[in-house]
Amino acid sequence: MAHTIRDIAAALDAKAEGNLDLAVEGVSEPAAAKAHHLALAMDPKYADGLSSGGARAAVVWDGADWKALGLEAAILAPRGRLAMAGLSRMMDPGPQIAPGIHPMTVIDPTAVIGEGAAIGPFVTIGAGVVIGTNARIAAHSSIAEGARIGDDVLLLNGVRIGPDVRIGDRFIGQPGASIGADGFSFVTPETSGVEEIRHTLGTRAEIRKQQWVRIHSLGSVSLGNDVEVGANSCIDRGTIRNTTVGDGTKIDNLVHLGHNVTVGKDCLLCALVGVAGSTRIGDRVVLAGQVGVSDNIFVGDDVIAGGGTKILSNAPAGRVLLGYPAVKMDIHVEMQKALRRLPRMAEKVAELQKTVSKLSDTDKI
Amino acid sequence: MAHTIRDIAAALDAKAEGNLDLAVEGVSEPAAAKAHHLALAMDPKYADGLSSGGARAAVVWDGADWKALGLEAAILAPRGRLAMAGLSRMMDPGPQIAPGIHPMTVIDPTAVIGEGAAIGPFVTIGAGVVIGTNARIAAHSSIAEGARIGDDVLLLNGVRIGPDVRIGDRFIGQPGASIGADGFSFVTPETSGVEEIRHTLGTRAEIRKQQWVRIHSLGSVSLGNDVEVGANSCIDRGTIRNTTVGDGTKIDNLVHLGHNVTVGKDCLLCALVGVAGSTRIGDRVVLAGQVGVSDNIFVGDDVIAGGGTKILSNAPAGRVLLGYPAVKMDIHVEMQKALRRLPRMAEKVAELQKTVSKLSDTDKI
Amino acid sequence: MAHTIRDIAAALDAKAEGNLDLAVEGVSEPAAAKAHHLALAMDPKYADGLSSGGARAAVVWDGADWKALGLEAAILAPRGRLAMAGLSRMMDPGPQIAPGIHPMTVIDPTAVIGEGAAIGPFVTIGAGVVIGTNARIAAHSSIAEGARIGDDVLLLNGVRIGPDVRIGDRFIGQPGASIGADGFSFVTPETSGVEEIRHTLGTRAEIRKQQWVRIHSLGSVSLGNDVEVGANSCIDRGTIRNTTVGDGTKIDNLVHLGHNVTVGKDCLLCALVGVAGSTRIGDRVVLAGQVGVSDNIFVGDDVIAGGGTKILSNAPAGRVLLGYPAVKMDIHVEMQKALRRLPRMAEKVAELQKTVSKLSDTDKI
Repeated sequence: MAHTIRDIAAALDAKAEGNLDLAVEGVSEPAAAKAHHLALAMDPKYADGLSSGGARAAVVWDGADWKALGLEAAILAPRGRLAMAGLSRMMDPGPQIAPGIHPMTVIDPTAVIGEGAAIGPFVTIGAGVVIGTNARIAAHSSIAEGARIGDDVLLLNGVRIGPDVRIGDRFIGQPGASIGADGFSFVTPETSGVEEIRHTLGTRAEIRKQQWVRIHSLGSVSLGNDVEVGANSCIDRGTIRNTTVGDGTKIDNLVHLGHNVTVGKDCLLCALVGVAGSTRIGDRVVLAGQVGVSDNIFVGDDVIAGGGTKILSNAPAGRVLLGYPAVKMDIHVEMQKALRRLPRMAEKVAELQKTVSKLSDTDKI
Repeated sequence: MAHTIRDIAAALDAKAEGNLDLAVEGVSEPAAAKAHHLALAMDPKYADGLSSGGARAAVVWDGADWKALGLEAAILAPRGRLAMAGLSRMMDPGPQIAPGIHPMTVIDPTAVIGEGAAIGPFVTIGAGVVIGTNARIAAHSSIAEGARIGDDVLLLNGVRIGPDVRIGDRFIGQPGASIGADGFSFVTPETSGVEEIRHTLGTRAEIRKQQWVRIHSLGSVSLGNDVEVGANSCIDRGTIRNTTVGDGTKIDNLVHLGHNVTVGKDCLLCALVGVAGSTRIGDRVVLAGQVGVSDNIFVGDDVIAGGGTKILSNAPAGRVLLGYPAVKMDIHVEMQKALRRLPRMAEKVAELQKTVSKLSDTDKI
Repeated sequence: MAHTIRDIAAALDAKAEGNLDLAVEGVSEPAAAKAHHLALAMDPKYADGLSSGGARAAVVWDGADWKALGLEAAILAPRGRLAMAGLSRMMDPGPQIAPGIHPMTVIDPTAVIGEGAAIGPFVTIGAGVVIGTNARIAAHSSIAEGARIGDDVLLLNGVRIGPDVRIGDRFIGQPGASIGADGFSFVTPETSGVEEIRHTLGTRAEIRKQQWVRIHSLGSVSLGNDVEVGANSCIDRGTIRNTTVGDGTKIDNLVHLGHNVTVGKDCLLCALVGVAGSTRIGDRVVLAGQVGVSDNIFVGDDVIAGGGTKILSNAPAGRVLLGYPAVKMDIHVEMQKALRRLPRMAEKVAELQKTVSKLSDTDKI
């Protein structure tokens, strides 16, 4: 679909210059752009690409001399990635799911589906499910009995919503996301080795055989508005109450949230993050890829943890963390520097010991 | 479904007091409980919640003065989480899968399915499959040719069972679990860089181009009785023999077990654990979230590894591990304390060097 | 299917001795072998197994005295695992997917599917899709609009191919693999805390509330020839250009490749590896299990990273890495040795301080 530079600039609330009636049909990196593309050149480093590519219009960095770069029109974007958000929303055709309900679906007669739905083939929807308006549900998704889902949601292929799950408006579920599998909760008839070492920090008095008895998950999962869950990510049901995720929180691929976990609002949880059972995560927390958080702890508001951080104990609000175990990022940097110098320092200490030993001997004489 | 306090106590083999004919219909956290709920208050910290909530009956901690807490009946639970296991099993309605075989399924005529099956829509079952009695198989699951599955199993949505997989009784597969994908096994025509550094510990004489030739998986997967596999977890086929998991072992979400791996009985493998090819894990081993285990090693019985531990070499039976690389948990704690003090210690050593240098000079004079 | 020793040796380009007309029907570990099996005994450690098992023929190590081991025929394999690759390909029957297109599929009339296809039940194929010859597509897979896929590909159950994805020849997708979910890309209207700490390395001047605005993925994914993607692994779409994976690269289970990532040729990415957005990985790179790579960095050709390594900054070509943060493998080993001795060294330094303090006092007198 074509858009004029004028319309795009208006949609982005950005300033435009040159031929505002010029129409473009897609976006491109500057060097690869064709004549019908809008090139994205929010940084001066793209100047060469603009010259070599074929774009007639571009989104350019603040202060760019777009005429000298051979363009007929330009949109000026002081904060480029924000402009990108608006632009990409305009240009994204979204997945093709035919309007209406595909005949090869199995939908319980008691389910209530709002107007404007587009539901693909091989979808199953259970008894008592309630779905808001304008739902887009791709092939192979399943929504189990009793689930309630808001307006304007998009479930991509094979999303699995468990019984009684609650989901707000504008939810996006990427392929294979599992919302509402059973929690991983087991108990041994006698005190288990895991319980023992939590008290003794590693010492085990006596090792006994033990078997695991399952605690079923009677709670479910609640997701707020504007939540996104990535491909093949898993959010487990709570034991008694619901596992919950607050409004505006975005979850990447292959993330695990255990039973009873509470995640606040506007968090970012990157790929392969794992949060163990009953832990509470505050608002606006950012966990980078492969971060792990132990069970039954608390991570305060605005905490940021770098890639691979393992948070094994409570983290106060606003802290910036890195490492295993997690420490403040600046301390981690300092510790690692010292660690790299440690082998040489060990040599120095050995030398010092010799020297001091000699000095002591001299003094004794 | 309503249960009397008498029946619940009998089922839990627990003592009950007060009005044993009082009927409850579900469980709740104490503060959120309604009159028809059984509140779960196995710890004195819930006393306030019991007073503010609406429950007339509760499971209480040993020695609780339940009358003073405003209850009409109480069940006494000396080991609360164990009681929770029994209670949750009683109260869990389980997923709704209609009895019988849904017409929108593709089941090979040579497959043998035991009595009492409930098989949902869009399920596929291949040639020669044998399934025991009372199987519950949710929508979108697939069971490939030659697989044999025991009695009373529950496959949730989209579980994928590969060819010739063997599964015991009472198996639970969470959504998207993959049992029997091909192993990740490749070889280069000449010695590869990976083979080289295993011998040299990091030095590479000569870097050559290399391409990977696939080793197909001719083995399959064997799971014992009472095994559970979490959402989107993956257990790969063996190369010649089967990858195996022993009776009673529970596996959480997003876990990877490579080809030829052997896991013993009654283990717990938490979310995002990865066990590389041909490694043997003993009985009753507990691997916390994001633990990694190298290929071709051995982890002894009763080993417990804390969150994020990377086990890179054999671990003797009974060891409690933490860290990357894994060391005994108490040593890890000690090492980390020393590491935190290391930057300051480096300063001290530098000062000592100056002082000693002066002393040496003095002595030389 | 039976094969003679002569045929197998010819297929493997290996030398054979003894009764070359002997036919075998499958392979086995030596000790478990039956009379119709070809035992795999590429190492002298299998000598005992050969004697106790029932095989009449075996693949043996170079120089084995196969007659003395009771065999009637032997194939000699100087590089055993390479022979295994050829053998396993011969012996693998592959998944049973009936030739032709199953009637319970939903295939857009504009899709073009090459000759020789075998497409299972409950598969969906979107508008404008082009698939080469001899495709094998198992139940529950979905191929979205505009995707183009080469010849001789195998999609196992529930593989999800997103819109406009490009895939070369001989691709293998394991169950649940997601190729082309949306990238995880969000921006805040004001500078976010994450942007701030990238500059300050951990210090935050002022913590503000922030919400995330979504950047849609307008790019797609391109995979070269001979690529394999493991079970439940995820490769996200690019923002403007495509996320790309080069020819011959093999990806294990539960791997995440973020948006805009470029992976070169002939790489091995093991289970639970995560590569964050816009990072470039060279050719022949090997990342062991649970390795993490930060966003927007570069990993050079022939890099090998051991299990659990976290690569947080650019890695030059040919480097062998280990640890968190990643360092050269030999340095990591040296650092860890020193760290284990650190608690004792701290004691030594404390003693030295005392001794030197006394010496200084003596000298001052």
